Amino acid sequence: MIIHEITHRIAYYETDTMGYVHHSNYIRLFERARTEMMRSLGHTYAAMEASGIMMPLIEASCRYHSPGRYDDLLTVKAIIKELPATRMHLDYEVHNEAGMLICSGHTTLVFVNARTRKPIRAPEAFVKALVEFS
Amino acid sequence: MIIHEITHRIAYYETDTMGYVHHSNYIRLFERARTEMMRSLGHTYAAMEASGIMMPLIEASCRYHSPGRYDDLLTVKAIIKELPATRMHLDYEVHNEAGMLICSGHTTLVFVNARTRKPIRAPEAFVKALVEFS
Amino acid sequence: MIIHEITHRIAYYETDTMGYVHHSNYIRLFERARTEMMRSLGHTYAAMEASGIMMPLIEASCRYHSPGRYDDLLTVKAIIKELPATRMHLDYEVHNEAGMLICSGHTTLVFVNARTRKPIRAPEAFVKALVEFS
Amino acid sequence: MIIHEITHRIAYYETDTMGYVHHSNYIRLFERARTEMMRSLGHTYAAMEASGIMMPLIEASCRYHSPGRYDDLLTVKAIIKELPATRMHLDYEVHNEAGMLICSGHTTLVFVNARTRKPIRAPEAFVKALVEFS
Repeated sequence: MIIHEITHRIAYYETDTMGYVHHSNYIRLFERARTEMMRSLGHTYAAMEASGIMMPLIEASCRYHSPGRYDDLLTVKAIIKELPATRMHLDYEVHNEAGMLICSGHTTLVFVNARTRKPIRAPEAFVKALVEFS
Repeated sequence: MIIHEITHRIAYYETDTMGYVHHSNYIRLFERARTEMMRSLGHTYAAMEASGIMMPLIEASCRYHSPGRYDDLLTVKAIIKELPATRMHLDYEVHNEAGMLICSGHTTLVFVNARTRKPIRAPEAFVKALVEFS
Repeated sequence: MIIHEITHRIAYYETDTMGYVHHSNYIRLFERARTEMMRSLGHTYAAMEASGIMMPLIEASCRYHSPGRYDDLLTVKAIIKELPATRMHLDYEVHNEAGMLICSGHTTLVFVNARTRKPIRAPEAFVKALVEFS
Repeated sequence: MIIHEITHRIAYYETDTMGYVHHSNYIRLFERARTEMMRSLGHTYAAMEASGIMMPLIEASCRYHSPGRYDDLLTVKAIIKELPATRMHLDYEVHNEAGMLICSGHTTLVFVNARTRKPIRAPEAFVKALVEFS
């Protein structure tokens, strides 16, 4: 299992009239955590794209446990439990500074050839990095 | 079953470097369709809040079938299949102008007292409107 | 002078904890009005890009006169007062349903060759359309 | 003069089909830098609101010098050149890692009583903090 954690300060534009973090923004925080996890593995998503591979999402889900609020310093964990083949599954957990679970979620990404946009297998070097870090 | 449909033109700020609508934005389109469905039932969400009831989300999910792109005129359907008790379930379908399924999804909302933020039952008048329109 | 007007319903995700439309969103509404003005002139921005011309912004400004709020149906006017040469200037006015001025603004765009990203003159056919409609 | 600097990593959702950071997002980065400047002065914006004072914007402007891109680690400087009375003026500069100027801008905020939403003078303790740090 690989876990990578980032912190993210909630800005005004991420909140709504209800006084909460707008629910659509957690999926964006998942992306930030996933991106930094890849960077920590030595394979940035930018480099992945430069090498001709894109990783669009095919599925995302969120469960909202407790509201996030303005100026909260949220911790976002990205979690990989199994090695990717043509798809990569990630789980996420968002906590606030008091340790309260705010949101949990899941995304599925596919590896595609950036030119043809057809599915391909996860690059061997990336899978190797995942093995080393897990 | 109640179905309400809106159209939404994709702006530049809703796309990303991949050339696609960013996946987080479909949850925002679901909200637009849900809001207009409520308006069409004669119970705007704004009036619901004014009456002291909020409807935060507790769950959302999306499946991304095909990419949406800049300037696409997307059709977003909000679908209610069962009457709400303390929770309201909605399904969504997003199609492009060629009729291709772009995204499908689901949200669960709860009715809460805006002051106490505690769960309550769906207001009777709202359920009645849902019955009349279904 | 050319004026094009759109309406835009404010969604929850465009508001903030202050109970107002977040100030960054008006620049996005300016884009929506500008895009629809171009469509009404028979030259969509999408077609402009397809022909190898991009129109990035080099300047934007907003004055916030009165707050917009959730569920407001805003009217956004895009206004062209002078024909573009290498730059296109637009003014904007945003009103709410009560006719109150919410926000006014200005943007300057440049025409660039999409491949070289170097400035070019406004396409003749586009300027001709502007002349015809003004 | 007070200068406060933050860094911000550009995520996919902040870019657009043109391959650039969407121009509306710089105003959001200005807010992040302004918020962290206030925190560094010992007066968080959250505490300001808790004390009954809001600081809505009345004006914002941006000049786009060079495009920001996906995964850029941008530096955002918030700059105060004069002490606030009823209004606070800030300048901003955004640079990329290569030191290139991406965007510069300006905002004007007003101090308002959160309840009445009427303009008031900047709180004395806040002005004092600004004096001490400049």
